[in-house]
Amino acid sequence: MKTQEVASSQELFISTAAMLGHWQGHRSLTRRAIEAFPEDKLFSFSIGGMRPFAQMVMEMIEIAGPGVESLATGKWEKVEEFDHTKSMPSTKAGLLELWDKVTKIIDDTWPTISPERFQQLEVAFGQYEGLNYNTLLYFVDNEIHHRGQAYVYLRAMGIEPPFFWER
Amino acid sequence: MKTQEVASSQELFISTAAMLGHWQGHRSLTRRAIEAFPEDKLFSFSIGGMRPFAQMVMEMIEIAGPGVESLATGKWEKVEEFDHTKSMPSTKAGLLELWDKVTKIIDDTWPTISPERFQQLEVAFGQYEGLNYNTLLYFVDNEIHHRGQAYVYLRAMGIEPPFFWER
Repeated sequence: MKTQEVASSQELFISTAAMLGHWQGHRSLTRRAIEAFPEDKLFSFSIGGMRPFAQMVMEMIEIAGPGVESLATGKWEKVEEFDHTKSMPSTKAGLLELWDKVTKIIDDTWPTISPERFQQLEVAFGQYEGLNYNTLLYFVDNEIHHRGQAYVYLRAMGIEPPFFWER
Repeated sequence: MKTQEVASSQELFISTAAMLGHWQGHRSLTRRAIEAFPEDKLFSFSIGGMRPFAQMVMEMIEIAGPGVESLATGKWEKVEEFDHTKSMPSTKAGLLELWDKVTKIIDDTWPTISPERFQQLEVAFGQYEGLNYNTLLYFVDNEIHHRGQAYVYLRAMGIEPPFFWER
């Protein structure tokens, strides 16, 4: 069988419901990575001029909350540049509280996304054109990518990160 | 609509063919991350006692090649512990050559995997029980996770990593 033939038949790899579980599993792990940071280091520790983990987390929050709502409605707000400095909480507890709010938004919104929406081509956040399933995968991949970086920050501080395989 | 109802209906999030493209897109980016490393640093640079990137890449190679073949056949070899030291090439060119071999194995093997295989429960590598689509997602997530760490290594060395969004 050729790849092209498989493509045209749209055989299921993962369902929409399973994808929600996959995403929230990752978010649960990221939450534990946030918790593993000492309060001050969460907002200040950096290697090679990279952002502190809190700023990466704010990016994840600002992508995931509005992102899942736009996947449901098809209405994307134009985002020139994510500006986390205005809205970022100044404490770990505040950041976790925001994180948990987004977790609930995702759980509440996901079942309202009609499955065919994921196969539609849209311009996410007014500038990133792609099929919606790819846009969502990008949200998750971006989170895994930055959390992996947070693991290096933690190791560099002598702190053991949470087990990667525990979700 | 409740999540449970969505689950039972197995609505498509991503197809098997699109998932191949998604995986190979990530592997293409990881290849460029390998290329970005100075030869010696690829095998030696470390932060916080973590493995040099070459060892992480060998793990990806040893998971992806045998992994995709086992997804096709259902036959998993028991792996106690991935031992990269025996089989790891000593040069960047050698590592990239192995990487490209696996790229071809994946492209050749993927179309032979019957789609329903991804929904089956198996014990990957003789010890990790899960639905096959989750096992494959784990391969990809593990690659993103470690490549994210390689980005910190590169930044710490003053080297600009490849753009994350280019696949």
